Amino acid sequence: MGDVIDIAVVGGGPAGLTAAIYGARARAKTVIFETGLTGGQIVSASWVENYPGFPDGVTGQELGDLMFQQAQNAGAESRTISPVEAIRANGCDFVLTVGGEELDARCVILSTGAIPKKLGIPGEAEFTGRGVSWCATCDGPLYRDKVVAVIGGGDSATQEALYLAKIAKEVHLIHRRDEFRATECLSEQCFFNPQITMHLSHIPEEILGEGGKVSGIRLRSRVDGAETTVPVDGVFEFVGIDAQSALVKDLCELDDLGFVKVDRNGLTSHPGLYAAGDVADYELKQVVTACARGATAVYHAVHYLETRVCNT
Amino acid sequence: MGDVIDIAVVGGGPAGLTAAIYGARARAKTVIFETGLTGGQIVSASWVENYPGFPDGVTGQELGDLMFQQAQNAGAESRTISPVEAIRANGCDFVLTVGGEELDARCVILSTGAIPKKLGIPGEAEFTGRGVSWCATCDGPLYRDKVVAVIGGGDSATQEALYLAKIAKEVHLIHRRDEFRATECLSEQCFFNPQITMHLSHIPEEILGEGGKVSGIRLRSRVDGAETTVPVDGVFEFVGIDAQSALVKDLCELDDLGFVKVDRNGLTSHPGLYAAGDVADYELKQVVTACARGATAVYHAVHYLETRVCNT
Repeated sequence: MGDVIDIAVVGGGPAGLTAAIYGARARAKTVIFETGLTGGQIVSASWVENYPGFPDGVTGQELGDLMFQQAQNAGAESRTISPVEAIRANGCDFVLTVGGEELDARCVILSTGAIPKKLGIPGEAEFTGRGVSWCATCDGPLYRDKVVAVIGGGDSATQEALYLAKIAKEVHLIHRRDEFRATECLSEQCFFNPQITMHLSHIPEEILGEGGKVSGIRLRSRVDGAETTVPVDGVFEFVGIDAQSALVKDLCELDDLGFVKVDRNGLTSHPGLYAAGDVADYELKQVVTACARGATAVYHAVHYLETRVCNT
Repeated sequence: MGDVIDIAVVGGGPAGLTAAIYGARARAKTVIFETGLTGGQIVSASWVENYPGFPDGVTGQELGDLMFQQAQNAGAESRTISPVEAIRANGCDFVLTVGGEELDARCVILSTGAIPKKLGIPGEAEFTGRGVSWCATCDGPLYRDKVVAVIGGGDSATQEALYLAKIAKEVHLIHRRDEFRATECLSEQCFFNPQITMHLSHIPEEILGEGGKVSGIRLRSRVDGAETTVPVDGVFEFVGIDAQSALVKDLCELDDLGFVKVDRNGLTSHPGLYAAGDVADYELKQVVTACARGATAVYHAVHYLETRVCNT
């Protein structure tokens, strides 16, 4: 590596990959750091129907691959062996600790995304990887002709319930509220799908197991407090996300939920440090908005690099 | 049509088409109004390399077609016969005049875009359509093995100069400043292209003609005031854009340049009226940012429709 990195993109999801495309095209030395699958959280989305330009939809994996290829074509480098362990300020630059090595960077785009929240109920930890999952694309195929529960009421939960209904024999969609937060067309499709059974106003209380595998889920009605146990072979949870902002928690301001506070240019409270995508405090978290935030952040980062004055 | 439109999308470029995709998926009655080519200004872009998801690039026409198809798949309607002649407020709704007919709409997303600026120099009006053009995709093929001038120094000018260099024998790239505003990779490619001749720090003063067609362009050096005449068969102008905001100039605030002022949600100063894409006052005007702004505006429009209280 040797040379100072102009723009270190930490996280290879849609925001980071778009930042890399724009950074490399601006001929800034741009390096993407990603140790998971490039494409980020979207890779675990079975199907993306609302990213403009793909009228028949596209798998999350495929869209992630296309963007990664595009970033490489543009000239971005990538480091995929070791995770970024720490980021600290050094004068007006930054030092990234990566696999024990220290790398200098003039700007950082944090695009580490967010990871799925857990329910925190009995049985969840015990059966993680043995029936409890947060990724229908990854684990869905294990449930052919079986029965699964999907927890949640937003776009992810309904989208993934529809996906799982194509594989599993039966899907139980469980949501704590009496209506869905999801885009209308997704909740409609769930209502009309004969393989999906709705459990609105129900709270999951325990994941039950037998012989080391999930065997059911115990629910409590929020209407009358009644308990029911639904026999299922797997439980998929889509109940929100936690920002992956730990790397910068001492460098810049976070909001109460842990998302990185940014201005309309993607700049955090620390000069030269930008955040884009799910890790930042934007209301609408979509693939296309993540991409646009990545482009915007790096556009301003490039201008910052051209004009900054450092006294160190 | 009959029913009240929930979301009238005025303008079918990337911002409008994305708004339509999201609006229709939210099961709002969404109608796109566009009398030109759907795809908007992007259709006149010969080649788009930086829209994430297309690693080998895509023509503007193709990307516009894909997004229009996607909006239709999602359930958006389109009206492509008559232009929207006027938009007025009616209580908390809007009335659109379209081909003499009056249509009621609960929300309006203005995504009318921007059109290329003119130079306003002698010969420009006279030879418009006879050698003077604002669209390389449309008119480039007429200049096979001929000589053309490209005016401008931004991404559009350099991108289109590169495109025209594949068709024409020689391209003269003329820019008033001593360096390009374009993304570095584009200006680099222009510098290294043997068919492109640079004229930096030169101002076009007159477009010359002979026999009813363009025959040359007269330039003045900003360094020493010297005049030169470059013999060319065509002149392509890419010197900025003018917001197409006339339809809403009495409804909401515009900035000094005529772009519609919006907040981070895309809302104008008039409730229920949103603007997205090149017509709005965002700094970064890219296809992906236009799409994200369309998605954001319609997301907030849908929430507004669910919660608004009208006293009319």
